[in-house]
Amino acid sequence: MNNVPACIAGDVVLGRDVRIAPFVNLYGCQIGDETKIGAFVEIQKNAIVGARCKISSHTFICEGVTIEDECFVGHGVMFINDKYPRATNPDGSLQTENDWRVVATRVRRGASIGSGAVILCGLTIGAGATIGAGAVVTSDVAAHETVAGVPARVLRPHQVGSEDL
Amino acid sequence: MNNVPACIAGDVVLGRDVRIAPFVNLYGCQIGDETKIGAFVEIQKNAIVGARCKISSHTFICEGVTIEDECFVGHGVMFINDKYPRATNPDGSLQTENDWRVVATRVRRGASIGSGAVILCGLTIGAGATIGAGAVVTSDVAAHETVAGVPARVLRPHQVGSEDL
Amino acid sequence: MNNVPACIAGDVVLGRDVRIAPFVNLYGCQIGDETKIGAFVEIQKNAIVGARCKISSHTFICEGVTIEDECFVGHGVMFINDKYPRATNPDGSLQTENDWRVVATRVRRGASIGSGAVILCGLTIGAGATIGAGAVVTSDVAAHETVAGVPARVLRPHQVGSEDL
Repeated sequence: MNNVPACIAGDVVLGRDVRIAPFVNLYGCQIGDETKIGAFVEIQKNAIVGARCKISSHTFICEGVTIEDECFVGHGVMFINDKYPRATNPDGSLQTENDWRVVATRVRRGASIGSGAVILCGLTIGAGATIGAGAVVTSDVAAHETVAGVPARVLRPHQVGSEDL
Repeated sequence: MNNVPACIAGDVVLGRDVRIAPFVNLYGCQIGDETKIGAFVEIQKNAIVGARCKISSHTFICEGVTIEDECFVGHGVMFINDKYPRATNPDGSLQTENDWRVVATRVRRGASIGSGAVILCGLTIGAGATIGAGAVVTSDVAAHETVAGVPARVLRPHQVGSEDL
Repeated sequence: MNNVPACIAGDVVLGRDVRIAPFVNLYGCQIGDETKIGAFVEIQKNAIVGARCKISSHTFICEGVTIEDECFVGHGVMFINDKYPRATNPDGSLQTENDWRVVATRVRRGASIGSGAVILCGLTIGAGATIGAGAVVTSDVAAHETVAGVPARVLRPHQVGSEDL
C-alpha cells in the first residue's frame, strides 16, 4: 500500500498488520491489530477501532465512537456525535469544540453494521448485534439482536445459541 | 492544509479563511468566508455555499444548490438536481447538459441537515430548520421546523421563540 | 484527467472514451465505452459496468455486480454482495475470501438508481426501472417499474408504452 495517497496523521496509533486502502483520512485515532480500513474512510481523533475489524469504504467514524474487536462496519456508514449540530452559535460566531460536547457511542465486540446505516449518538450496539443495510439506528441495540429500517426496529431478538451462528 | 491532495479548480471562488480538508473535489463553485469543507466532499459548478457553514465529510453538493450562511450540512448528505436522471437519451446517445435542466434547491440561513440525509430537488429548506439524520426530504421544510424519516415528516413545527434556541 | 490522483489498478479493463474523475479506486473491474465515473467511486474486482453509463460520485460497486449498458447510478449508492457480513469467523480469525460467497446482483439496461440508494444482494433490477433516491431495495424490481422507500415498494408499475418515456 505504498505510493498511494492517504492522509494518516502522525498521531494515529496503528496496531500490527493494519491494512489501509488508498484515499483515507485518519487523525488522532487508534486502530487495532489486523484491522482493514477501506478507501474514502475518515476516522477522527479520539475514535477507537479494535482488532480484526473491517471498516469498509466510504464510512465516517467520528470522535467519541469506540468500535470493539471483530466488528464489521459496512460501506457508507455514518456515525454521529452531536444531537443538535449547528454551524454557528446564536451570535453568529463559528462553533468551536467548546460549544458542544461529544456524545459517545460504543459498538460491542463482533457486531455487524450494514452498508448505508446511520448511527445516532449516545448509543450502544450490543455484542454480535446485526444492523441491517440502510437502517437509521436511534436507540440501543441489544446483544445478538437484529434491527433494520428507519427508524431501526427489531427484526429478530437474541435467541439462545445464536452466538454460535 | 498544504501538501495534501485536493482538487480545487481554478474557477472556484473561495472567501476569506475557508478551511478545506484533504481529498475534496471542487469546481466552478463559490464558498463563503470561514466555511469549513470536510474530506471527500464534491461541490459542483454553479453551487453556492455561504459564510460560516460546515460542510461535513462525504457530502455531495450539486449544481443548482444554494446554501445560505451559517448552515450545518452533516456527513454523507446527497443533494439532487434532476427528477428523472438517465444516462442516455431514448436514441441511446449519452445525455449532455442540453438534455436535462437543473432543478434548484435552496437551504436557508442557519438550517441544519443531519448526516446521511438525501435532499430531493426543487425544494426550499427554511431558515433554522432541522433535518434529521438519514431523512429523505421530498417536500419543502418550513423555517424552524424539524423533519425526519423516509419520506421526511414534521416532528416538531416551528414554535414561537424557537429562534432563540 | 491527467495529473489528478486516481488509483486505477493495472488489471482494470477500460473501454473507449471512458471518463474518470479524480479520487477513484478501481481494481479488477471492467468499464464499457463512453461511461463516466465520478469522484470518490470504488469499483471492485469482478464488477462489470457497461457502456454509456453514468456512475456518480461517492458510489460503491462491489464484486459480483453487473451493470448493463446505459444505466444511471446516482451519488452515494451502495451495492452489497454478502447477506450476513462479519469481520471474523467464529474462532476469531479474520474472514478471507474462502469464508463467504459473493451474492451477485444485476442492473439491466437503462435502469436508473437514485442517489443514496442501498441495493441488497442477489437482486435483479429490471431494464429501464427507476429506483427512488434513498430507497433500500430488498427484492427484485421488474422492468420499467418505479420503486422507492425503505424497504423499497412499487410506486408505479410498468405501463404499456412506458419504454418510450
